[in-house]
Amino acid sequence: MKVDGTPYRTIWLGDDRETVEIIDQTRLPHRFEIVRLTSLQDAAQAIRDMLVRGAPLIGATAAYGMALAMREDSTDAGLDNAYAALMATRPTAVNLRWALDDMVARLRPEAADVRVEVAYARAAAVCDEDVAINSAIGDHGLEIIRAIHETRSGDGPVNILTHCNAGWLATVDWGTALAPIYKAHDAGIPVHVWADETRPRNQGAALTAWELGRHGVSHAVIADNAGGHMMQHGLVDLCITGTDRTAASGDVANKIGTYLKALAAHDNGVPFYVGLPSPTIDWTIADGVRDIPIEERGADEVTHIAGKTESGDIATVQLTPDGSAAANYAFDVTPARLVTGLITERGVCPASRDGLAGLFPELAGAD
Amino acid sequence: MKVDGTPYRTIWLGDDRETVEIIDQTRLPHRFEIVRLTSLQDAAQAIRDMLVRGAPLIGATAAYGMALAMREDSTDAGLDNAYAALMATRPTAVNLRWALDDMVARLRPEAADVRVEVAYARAAAVCDEDVAINSAIGDHGLEIIRAIHETRSGDGPVNILTHCNAGWLATVDWGTALAPIYKAHDAGIPVHVWADETRPRNQGAALTAWELGRHGVSHAVIADNAGGHMMQHGLVDLCITGTDRTAASGDVANKIGTYLKALAAHDNGVPFYVGLPSPTIDWTIADGVRDIPIEERGADEVTHIAGKTESGDIATVQLTPDGSAAANYAFDVTPARLVTGLITERGVCPASRDGLAGLFPELAGAD
Repeated sequence: MKVDGTPYRTIWLGDDRETVEIIDQTRLPHRFEIVRLTSLQDAAQAIRDMLVRGAPLIGATAAYGMALAMREDSTDAGLDNAYAALMATRPTAVNLRWALDDMVARLRPEAADVRVEVAYARAAAVCDEDVAINSAIGDHGLEIIRAIHETRSGDGPVNILTHCNAGWLATVDWGTALAPIYKAHDAGIPVHVWADETRPRNQGAALTAWELGRHGVSHAVIADNAGGHMMQHGLVDLCITGTDRTAASGDVANKIGTYLKALAAHDNGVPFYVGLPSPTIDWTIADGVRDIPIEERGADEVTHIAGKTESGDIATVQLTPDGSAAANYAFDVTPARLVTGLITERGVCPASRDGLAGLFPELAGAD
Repeated sequence: MKVDGTPYRTIWLGDDRETVEIIDQTRLPHRFEIVRLTSLQDAAQAIRDMLVRGAPLIGATAAYGMALAMREDSTDAGLDNAYAALMATRPTAVNLRWALDDMVARLRPEAADVRVEVAYARAAAVCDEDVAINSAIGDHGLEIIRAIHETRSGDGPVNILTHCNAGWLATVDWGTALAPIYKAHDAGIPVHVWADETRPRNQGAALTAWELGRHGVSHAVIADNAGGHMMQHGLVDLCITGTDRTAASGDVANKIGTYLKALAAHDNGVPFYVGLPSPTIDWTIADGVRDIPIEERGADEVTHIAGKTESGDIATVQLTPDGSAAANYAFDVTPARLVTGLITERGVCPASRDGLAGLFPELAGAD
């Protein structure tokens, strides 16, 4: 999408066609900085330290991480080492495994001296496929927004609540949850986005607000606590979130707090949709609440927060008293019964195994 | 309660028996500072700028504000002026109106030259009554915690989630939601408190964590987003929150986000109780969601946050991109259907008009 008029993706090859360039998302929204990845270690660190985040972008970065690794060691041992190093970076994202399995399956049959070339080509294809998937999700979700707009009385915008960042910054381009919003905005349908700030890492306040603003989409940041009240009072027409991992049953693992918004949407008759690229479906999991492992992260993400000081510096401040503990569960699982529909690249379906299998019979049958 | 071993209330008379002293709660948890109020203006500003907050403490401060005002002007005009000035400080807290109406009703019949004395005596009584009410809430709530403790298998603590700060800092002493927890802790029942940080003003991270820690109660701060996941996985035995205003129907207005936790508790079979001093009941309101007005506060509470820097200074940092708007609804209303019970100074009752009227027939009949 655009940053003040200039089109960007979140990951691309540098001018030397070997270096991988990314936006350092830990510096947003206050700094727009490009980081160059030149090694397996760089790629693993970018994923682990969340310079890149969002399931599809993690997958794309892992794919390019394999390409960088092949430059260092294209033997079978190098392949195994790169796979293990990248797989260990984040436990929850199913795209990570998907991308790495895909890369290894394509690289292992090749001779070591062509693996670099094959890996770069495949990583580029992974990126292009992600863009195509997200664009299709946007096209299908656009029709949901258009339908709400057409049935509204009055001229106000369609008010859409989203949680965390499932925008173009979380993918290679377009985003998943935000793709329908960008498509609607670009099609001239008035939209207004309520961006949950998404504690503790504040991806909504930092990333969603930044990318919507840079592309020119009307939005306001709200505390994560606010959405229930706003749904009670008709201030939300529609919720759309992304997902890091979806069970075959339609249960959706996403950023911590998504479940609370789905409960409020259900309680108030507000449609709750999930933008869902098919690589995030985990066909092996039947009960998401029970079986999707939830990452616990460091307490310092809750006790401390970074922001911009009056003088323009980035500073970290402590929010809690000295000596108070904190717990930090990174994701939660929203049961399928609370999800109105899944917006996939092949269309919108009910959040159920039958719904998903109807759109992806060749994947559902593999289980 | 105790601060590192020393008993405190949140509001008391200074050594001159005229000055009113309070804890500046905007400085917590990083600074423990006492502020002296010597005028009506001081008291109004302390309420408006939230040096004091929490419905019962706001009422107590307003009562002492009337006493300070009588020292400046004890005529009828002075009485009216003080009432108007204090009433304008916060729109939602029903205790504010209750305390001011009570003070005016007692002061207006008195001659101007005795109003100072009467006002100070009555303000002191308002404080003592609040302490007695909260202690009784604690005693009744203690039995709920004790019952859970006795039915548990294993020796772990009773895990209690609370939202915002309804502790002793929100009252004159004991607190409302936290009173049962202090009573249980002091009675030797093992308790562990999950303190919602409570964006955007972070009363949980700052105040609840501080007062629990200073009194020695086990606790951990969690993001407001976390509670749903934790209830899904059995990590919460009980929720207790406070309330700023309760409709006669049992609908509960409390800090924004309370409704989301009540939805999650209901969805997971976790008991959800509200600590409720009877002065917070608004017998004139039958439908809380529809009729309780919700304060909107400044966007800067969402876009900026204060904390302690590495060097120990207090600094404010900006969380959102330049140019992004924010919306800030301060309270929400939890429908009575989601509330397991109301813990009042006269016992525990269902969240309903019949339940409240059973405990407070003389108040219910006045409507």
